[in-house]
Amino acid sequence: MIRLLGIDPGSRRTGIGIIDVDTYGHYSFVHCEVLNLLIDTDNFPERLGKLCDGIDAVISEFKPQQVAIETVFMDKSAMSALKLGHARGAAIATVVRRHLPLSEYAPRVIKQSLVGKGAADKDQVQHMVKLLLNLQGERLQADASDALAVALTHAHMSATAMRAGVPVTALRRR
Amino acid sequence: MIRLLGIDPGSRRTGIGIIDVDTYGHYSFVHCEVLNLLIDTDNFPERLGKLCDGIDAVISEFKPQQVAIETVFMDKSAMSALKLGHARGAAIATVVRRHLPLSEYAPRVIKQSLVGKGAADKDQVQHMVKLLLNLQGERLQADASDALAVALTHAHMSATAMRAGVPVTALRRR
Repeated sequence: MIRLLGIDPGSRRTGIGIIDVDTYGHYSFVHCEVLNLLIDTDNFPERLGKLCDGIDAVISEFKPQQVAIETVFMDKSAMSALKLGHARGAAIATVVRRHLPLSEYAPRVIKQSLVGKGAADKDQVQHMVKLLLNLQGERLQADASDALAVALTHAHMSATAMRAGVPVTALRRR
Repeated sequence: MIRLLGIDPGSRRTGIGIIDVDTYGHYSFVHCEVLNLLIDTDNFPERLGKLCDGIDAVISEFKPQQVAIETVFMDKSAMSALKLGHARGAAIATVVRRHLPLSEYAPRVIKQSLVGKGAADKDQVQHMVKLLLNLQGERLQADASDALAVALTHAHMSATAMRAGVPVTALRRR
């Protein structure tokens, strides 16, 4: 079994999603949360510090073995891309300093992986996240859903590698 | 006396400059270096991790009390601004997590502060850095010079506050 951490970084809110993937490629929901970086401060550097503290705390508590993060959607304005870049840089550095392997996925790839088309809307992605993780009926914040979506994408994308350790008999039974 | 750390962040090379400022507003050179983040890796996340490790090591060794960093020059291309944003975000988060006060200065303000005009070129800035820190004749890498320049700018900008603790007699003698 492999535990995956998905991160949807932002300088105001950062989504965290954790799933487990077993050797058969089945996944299960473990945890999700949204780090609200605006609590108690509007100071941008402090928000980046809180982002790192939050990710560090989640890594310590849940001990994920691999991490996946969304790449920046470059159609955003230069200023918002820059702010998002700061948040991503802080998040990525935190993961790397914990010596965890990190994979990056473009928003289009995440949509393609979950919904089957790169132009899917957010509601469709959230619908699939809930379906795949058996969370129907649960309220899921958008950033948490996005974090779970990138974790699920990583599970799909690395399925072959993950299954490499599976005994042949197990593979045949699928 | 106050010890200042200036950082010129970049995802390939990050400049580090440390100066001391006494209660009379005189400064002296302490240390400068360029963190070469490309050594042993071309992996962008790993470079961000090395950037944070490098800044953390410098803070532990030299124990600066305040930190100054250059803001992003937004005329750069969207992609280079985004990469620089990642490096700045990682650097800023590292400083904040060490509980050090951080000030940010625009390139134009740094040039104005050191050379007296916001449109000064890099050579003029380096010339003033060497003059002010008594480093004439020394070879100074561009990134290290830029890091010392932002530290000097912070010293100028916060001079009034720094002098607030100076006894009146000392001020009169100036």
